[in-house]
Amino acid sequence: MDQIPEPSLRRLPWYLAFVSLLQAQGIEYVSSTRISRELNVDASQIAKDLSFLHLKGKTRVGYEVNQLCCELEALLGFKRRHNAVVLGVGSLGKALISDSGLAHYGLNIVAGFDINPAIIGTKVNDVSIYSVDDLDLQCRRLHAEIGIVTLPVDHAQEGVDRLIDAGIKGLWNFTPFRIRAPRGVVISNTSLYSHLALIYNRLDSQNPTHRLKS
Amino acid sequence: MDQIPEPSLRRLPWYLAFVSLLQAQGIEYVSSTRISRELNVDASQIAKDLSFLHLKGKTRVGYEVNQLCCELEALLGFKRRHNAVVLGVGSLGKALISDSGLAHYGLNIVAGFDINPAIIGTKVNDVSIYSVDDLDLQCRRLHAEIGIVTLPVDHAQEGVDRLIDAGIKGLWNFTPFRIRAPRGVVISNTSLYSHLALIYNRLDSQNPTHRLKS
Repeated sequence: MDQIPEPSLRRLPWYLAFVSLLQAQGIEYVSSTRISRELNVDASQIAKDLSFLHLKGKTRVGYEVNQLCCELEALLGFKRRHNAVVLGVGSLGKALISDSGLAHYGLNIVAGFDINPAIIGTKVNDVSIYSVDDLDLQCRRLHAEIGIVTLPVDHAQEGVDRLIDAGIKGLWNFTPFRIRAPRGVVISNTSLYSHLALIYNRLDSQNPTHRLKS
Repeated sequence: MDQIPEPSLRRLPWYLAFVSLLQAQGIEYVSSTRISRELNVDASQIAKDLSFLHLKGKTRVGYEVNQLCCELEALLGFKRRHNAVVLGVGSLGKALISDSGLAHYGLNIVAGFDINPAIIGTKVNDVSIYSVDDLDLQCRRLHAEIGIVTLPVDHAQEGVDRLIDAGIKGLWNFTPFRIRAPRGVVISNTSLYSHLALIYNRLDSQNPTHRLKS
């Protein structure tokens, strides 16, 4: 499979969400102009992003909605199950294991790991929680390919190193720590705290008196 | 408060995470060179980002760690409580309400809203779940300023419109739908599915045989 540029990978799920809506409404065809108008993305950009599908739109009617949905899901990898483990079953780790919606996007969480004896041996949303001592063994047994990092910042890198030793090739980092990994290991960062900081800053800069009130 | 550029807002929580670690280790001073080396960000970029703090580093020793932590937390808004409501208490909405770690970053979730009678009137992590019919009333009563959008895609925009009518000024969108809001309302998108697609694509492009196996 070709490497798709990151900005395209950011937009492609928007198209999928929109055409899934059209599909649910029984609409058969959609033009890039219509997608452009609805999502406020340049039509030529959309055509370029959709070119990764090797799918041709028909003149005048545009793309076939069912086919577009199906091909987008396949391209984005949402149709294939990717086994993942969660390292750090604190409140965020537990929350992600409990979010069964991620399974619709191809994420199959097969185990959680922690050092807390109170939760080792328990289950969250039917997913077993193991001791980090069993990380290597369980990751290999369960054919895990993705490690979700929800550790405290001061253990993030150490945990990442253990995941890599256990054969994990993709890291989904939820910590604000800049984790490092050798070449060939994929890192995707989800910075919940940066997104919060963005909202706070924009709210405060719009309402200068706001900060004083608190 | 000044508008801080988005790229700086993305990096500032990294610095905070790193200097918090140093603080826990009892380290008193840190130079931008050290932060640069550890986080792999250009030193001049760090100096520029930290200039929003109106804090001066000392020649040779650098920034005072305690002060830097404290000022970064204040600048990012993590020290102030921001009241937020969750619209859509499905599996992701419930997960976010359950993630009590967000409170350490200033997010105070005060209510959840849903249309499902089975959960209306219940509590998740001590947070009451109300009917969406009570959205306006409760948002105003609870002085909510942020709306967390975890609705199904086909209800995302309708929900956003209701949040805005209820006086919400900041939207944290977890749906892959491109929500729209009038000027003056802040939108921050967290695209979990795009981040997953990035990992999947990079894993597949590195292991061309990988896809065939599945």
